[in-house]
Amino acid sequence: MERNMFREEIKVLDCTIRDGGLINNHYFTDEFVRAVYTAISASGVDYIEMGYRSSRQFAPQSEFGDWKYCDDDAISKIIDGVESNTKISIMIDAHRVSDQEFRPVDQSPVDLIRVATYVKDIDKAIALAKMCDDLGYETAVNIMAISAENQPDLVEALDQLASSPAETVCVVDSYGNFFSEDVHKMVKLYMDHLPGKRIGMHCHNNQQLAFANTIEGIRKGANMVDGSLYGIGRGAGNCPLELLVGFLKNPKFDIEPILKVIQDYMIPMRDEIEWGYLIPYAITGMLNQHPRSAIAMRKTANKDKYAEFYNEIIDVE
Amino acid sequence: MERNMFREEIKVLDCTIRDGGLINNHYFTDEFVRAVYTAISASGVDYIEMGYRSSRQFAPQSEFGDWKYCDDDAISKIIDGVESNTKISIMIDAHRVSDQEFRPVDQSPVDLIRVATYVKDIDKAIALAKMCDDLGYETAVNIMAISAENQPDLVEALDQLASSPAETVCVVDSYGNFFSEDVHKMVKLYMDHLPGKRIGMHCHNNQQLAFANTIEGIRKGANMVDGSLYGIGRGAGNCPLELLVGFLKNPKFDIEPILKVIQDYMIPMRDEIEWGYLIPYAITGMLNQHPRSAIAMRKTANKDKYAEFYNEIIDVE
Repeated sequence: MERNMFREEIKVLDCTIRDGGLINNHYFTDEFVRAVYTAISASGVDYIEMGYRSSRQFAPQSEFGDWKYCDDDAISKIIDGVESNTKISIMIDAHRVSDQEFRPVDQSPVDLIRVATYVKDIDKAIALAKMCDDLGYETAVNIMAISAENQPDLVEALDQLASSPAETVCVVDSYGNFFSEDVHKMVKLYMDHLPGKRIGMHCHNNQQLAFANTIEGIRKGANMVDGSLYGIGRGAGNCPLELLVGFLKNPKFDIEPILKVIQDYMIPMRDEIEWGYLIPYAITGMLNQHPRSAIAMRKTANKDKYAEFYNEIIDVE
Repeated sequence: MERNMFREEIKVLDCTIRDGGLINNHYFTDEFVRAVYTAISASGVDYIEMGYRSSRQFAPQSEFGDWKYCDDDAISKIIDGVESNTKISIMIDAHRVSDQEFRPVDQSPVDLIRVATYVKDIDKAIALAKMCDDLGYETAVNIMAISAENQPDLVEALDQLASSPAETVCVVDSYGNFFSEDVHKMVKLYMDHLPGKRIGMHCHNNQQLAFANTIEGIRKGANMVDGSLYGIGRGAGNCPLELLVGFLKNPKFDIEPILKVIQDYMIPMRDEIEWGYLIPYAITGMLNQHPRSAIAMRKTANKDKYAEFYNEIIDVE
């Protein structure tokens, strides 16, 4: 079939290291992170998200790898000497901020700071976005778990964001619960309430809809879309970057370095840590629940007792 | 999110045994087939497709299991004694028909015969549908590989089918190449040229879009949709039946027997035979090619050399 999905404005963000880090407490080796950064740079993908800038007070250094903190110096060590036009992104949690430090943008390798928040913490998120904007960073806000929020509360949060400095606001399907009609509604809602801002899409793959929903977001006007290598990410994972780059027709993208890093690193890694479509994640997605119960059961001897798991969690409701 | 996808007319067909059989030359044990039939029956799914009714002249009995032939007696042995409202379907290939035999419907356990055809063999397909209709069976025609056909030829085939006795005509994405806009176009094309007929959807999962595309078909009016347990099927496989049944809101469906048969049979089987999302199938899907090159490379020592495979097949084009 002949199609044409070329829109100059569409930016792609790779969240392999950031969302993948949620599976293994951000213990990725420098070799792996550098290989991913090198491949993403060679593929022409616009942004790479390295992890979280977390407070060591809330996230003790004994329990996490480097990419829980994303210190400027750790990032600089990775990217040093690699030819790249890919911008660096980090994420901060609005509900877990304490002693994180941010240099002015010209003293940092970071370009974009994305603030993840729940609706209830939107004031904190806006304050953080303002602080980062004042330091010269590009800023974005990701409101999580919106499939389980009351829409009036969400709309109020969007209206507050409209006058914030955040350039981008991301539609996030935390529970992997959305179908295409939900994506259409949400992107329209965000565009209506956030005039002039860029809309992003971050989808989870519980029901094998992350790629499909990302495309639907693009069709409705989303211009910043997240993907990850081989779909890595907590639970069912994210939109597979390889499919996204195969779909977008901008000639600046090259899929080959992506295929290469998947074969060299992601396939062996999938034998060590688990992500992707698995029935327990499909069940939490269908039921519009956080995947934590599914993640927990996958660590037990009953990890393939799907019918029992289903009956347990529908009983709780 | 609140949604409502209830339409009485929507019928679901499980093609686990039929499409799954393409992976293992239809060598499924009677125990497995009976377990699947029992689960599908308990789940309220409308049809189960057992395999092909192939000619032993073209398909020597030494090379294939029972479900390559779907003899009436073999089917009767499986379904005997199982409580069920699920109808039995078999498939025949229009381009590989010779000495197959069909009893009148009242002497057979089969309810539905689906004729698979390429556009070029549409006359044979229509003749077969007529023969089966005369014997009293429900009939359907599946035109394969339409993403690689010239649309005028396809339209001519549809116009011929319009006056055939086949009640159902299925939109089949053989190469797993369709995006939502293609599904919308095709379902509309089929509906426009096949007034009064039921439209079906059979999607392949090369780009993780089989479930998404099946939903898009339903939204546009398709009323007979195929799924398979845990997405089993040749190459990237099909729309996962568990997701489809989770999506449809008809209370007659029960997902629990489906989850149970997946945990008991499909998970162990996936360790023995391969199907589902794998990068080589994604590549053939993106490039609108038959998966045969990807299936072949997955049987070699280079099965995870994705970049090399990609370069080889784009060079051939």
